[in-house]
Amino acid sequence: MNTERRPRTDHPTPVTVVGLGLMGRALAEAFLRGGHPTTVWNRSPEKAAPLVALGAELAGSPRDAVAASPLVVVCVSDHGAVRDLLDPLGDLLDGRVLANLTSGTSAQARETAGWAARHGGSYLDGAIMTVPQAIGTAGAVLLYSGPRSAFEEHEPVLRLLGAGTTHLGEDHGLSALHDVALLGMMWGALNGFLQGTALLGAAGVGAAAFTPYADTLLTTVAGWLPAYARQLDDGSRQPLDATLDTHLAAIEHLVEENESLGVSTELPRLFRALVDRAVASGHGDSGYAAVIEQFRRPVEVRS
Amino acid sequence: MNTERRPRTDHPTPVTVVGLGLMGRALAEAFLRGGHPTTVWNRSPEKAAPLVALGAELAGSPRDAVAASPLVVVCVSDHGAVRDLLDPLGDLLDGRVLANLTSGTSAQARETAGWAARHGGSYLDGAIMTVPQAIGTAGAVLLYSGPRSAFEEHEPVLRLLGAGTTHLGEDHGLSALHDVALLGMMWGALNGFLQGTALLGAAGVGAAAFTPYADTLLTTVAGWLPAYARQLDDGSRQPLDATLDTHLAAIEHLVEENESLGVSTELPRLFRALVDRAVASGHGDSGYAAVIEQFRRPVEVRS
Ligand SMILES: NC(=O)c1ccc[n+]([C@@H]2O[C@H](COP(=O)([O-])OP(=O)(O)OC[C@H]3O[C@@H](n4cnc5c(N)ncnc54)[C@H](OP(=O)(O)O)[C@@H]3O)[C@@H](O)[C@H]2O)c1
Ligand SMILES: NC(=O)c1ccc[n+]([C@@H]2O[C@H](COP(=O)([O-])OP(=O)(O)OC[C@H]3O[C@@H](n4cnc5c(N)ncnc54)[C@H](OP(=O)(O)O)[C@@H]3O)[C@@H](O)[C@H]2O)c1
Repeated sequence: MNTERRPRTDHPTPVTVVGLGLMGRALAEAFLRGGHPTTVWNRSPEKAAPLVALGAELAGSPRDAVAASPLVVVCVSDHGAVRDLLDPLGDLLDGRVLANLTSGTSAQARETAGWAARHGGSYLDGAIMTVPQAIGTAGAVLLYSGPRSAFEEHEPVLRLLGAGTTHLGEDHGLSALHDVALLGMMWGALNGFLQGTALLGAAGVGAAAFTPYADTLLTTVAGWLPAYARQLDDGSRQPLDATLDTHLAAIEHLVEENESLGVSTELPRLFRALVDRAVASGHGDSGYAAVIEQFRRPVEVRS
Repeated sequence: MNTERRPRTDHPTPVTVVGLGLMGRALAEAFLRGGHPTTVWNRSPEKAAPLVALGAELAGSPRDAVAASPLVVVCVSDHGAVRDLLDPLGDLLDGRVLANLTSGTSAQARETAGWAARHGGSYLDGAIMTVPQAIGTAGAVLLYSGPRSAFEEHEPVLRLLGAGTTHLGEDHGLSALHDVALLGMMWGALNGFLQGTALLGAAGVGAAAFTPYADTLLTTVAGWLPAYARQLDDGSRQPLDATLDTHLAAIEHLVEENESLGVSTELPRLFRALVDRAVASGHGDSGYAAVIEQFRRPVEVRS
């Protein structure tokens, strides 16, 4: 028995990557560097050239690509492109694991999962929480949802894409939900950075000078999250640092400074509206956690 | 001569702290722990009790408090409170350094600087980029602007409040501008966190489960800032990671997920509007740096 069970590394799992955009190329490269026989396909085949140079097999069609490996990773623009590519290939799914790293909604993930199940395939929906350059590094987080057995079967291969490779649960919608929840923070931070850069730029301070402070501030805020999370989960609202009255006064300064230097105040005004409403509902003495109700109870603004 | 020039530590500079709110108490405590004779004053004197227990002198009036020390630190709610307290005390300013750590605008800082100058005082305007609990730690950043000579005279004492104590420049407005620029990022990140918490909460995932991912994401975003800053300063806009078309598609998912789970879409809709306009102006193939124009060229939205 033992002599027949070879260690995985002797026969690395063949992997297929469908979609070689900015992200797909990074994924395929990580599998190749990890020593896995890697088959690739892209609508515009010229994007495969650097991967073929690294030893990838370029498939002539999506069908050939999917047929080549027990693990098929798809990373194209959107759900529509995924379904256009895969719908004709249902007959190939049985016995394979399909890991879809294309961004989408939880509803789309569940829909594709249903389609895969009808064809006897195992489906993992995944979200890539990093940029192409960071694929394969210790800091890269990739979140999967769907059958744990499928995840565990290919976990060592998938982990080549990032040390933060995690299975969130069986519900196929979980990775898409975490994806947008985290991206929402990213856009919040990036837009805040652009707002600050525009403001300081109008006062003659360049982005390079601002960045070390911005970097420290974001890292500092990251450190506050566990304490906020406890309040959000247990309903307590006492100020951990400043009261909402203090926040509101400071937001007013943000609005004023941008206004007086001719910089957009759209984002500061939304910050003010959120805290204003929380204060108006009696939370002037509460901490920032009290603003959660402004997200949980949507104000009807339709655009 | 040498025998008369004693090292500073033998005669630590007396310091006065006016305002003992959440933040002022932390400041006074740091001076006391640093071994400085510390005089305190607060409108509601009972807040001084824990500091008196640590050795602080409680002054009977703002006048007595200011008269007690060559370095006077003020940290009250707002500019109006600063001026109410200090305006009658102009005659005491000559020869003292006044460091005002009350949040305010750059215009308010320059106004108070003018008042101090008319009375022969040296004025530093400061911004505290951390929470009271972190005062005195290695991670605490405090930004000062105003005469470098005044900053340098008291730098060792001021540095007790945080290892990230920095002089930004002579223009008194700089610390207030950096303050709001950094706070804008903070609100961006915190609101993004609340949005994500509300969304995942509606799907049955608690804030505590979300937080480790959120923490990693923010730290990851902090690491991207230098590369974005280079683009913002040199005008290049090529995608460092994803294109704006890719961002826009993902923002659409954020809007949809929140909408379908009954969570507010105000913030996601603003994110979408910003990127939408950047794409409409021809930046679909650009990176996120191209969104800066949406801040620099304000859209007129008055509320
Ligand atoms: N880039 C990032 O930082 C990042 C981070 C996390 C997640 N993601 C996600 O990863 C996915 C891919 O992003 P990306 O940055 O790689 O985008 P990209 O550079 O624009 O590449 C898009 C890929 O999709 C292919 N494609 C689009 N429509 C297709 C169709 N109808 N049929 C076949 N192929 C089609 C493109 O083929 P052609 O080459 O022929 O156009 C290309 O390979 C997206 O869902 C994105 O949200 C990206
Ligand atoms: N807390 C933070 O995390 C934080 C962080 C950075 C910057 N800051 C800034 O630090 C400043 C103080 O914040 P805080 O959190 O300490 O606020 P706080 O807890 O609300 O304390 C406000 C202080 O101002 C005093 N005050 C208000 N109006 C006054 C007046 N007209 N005359 C005399 N004293 C008056 C209050 O005296 P009473 O005790 O008598 O009410 C109290 O000492 C604010 O500008 C804030 O933006 C705070």
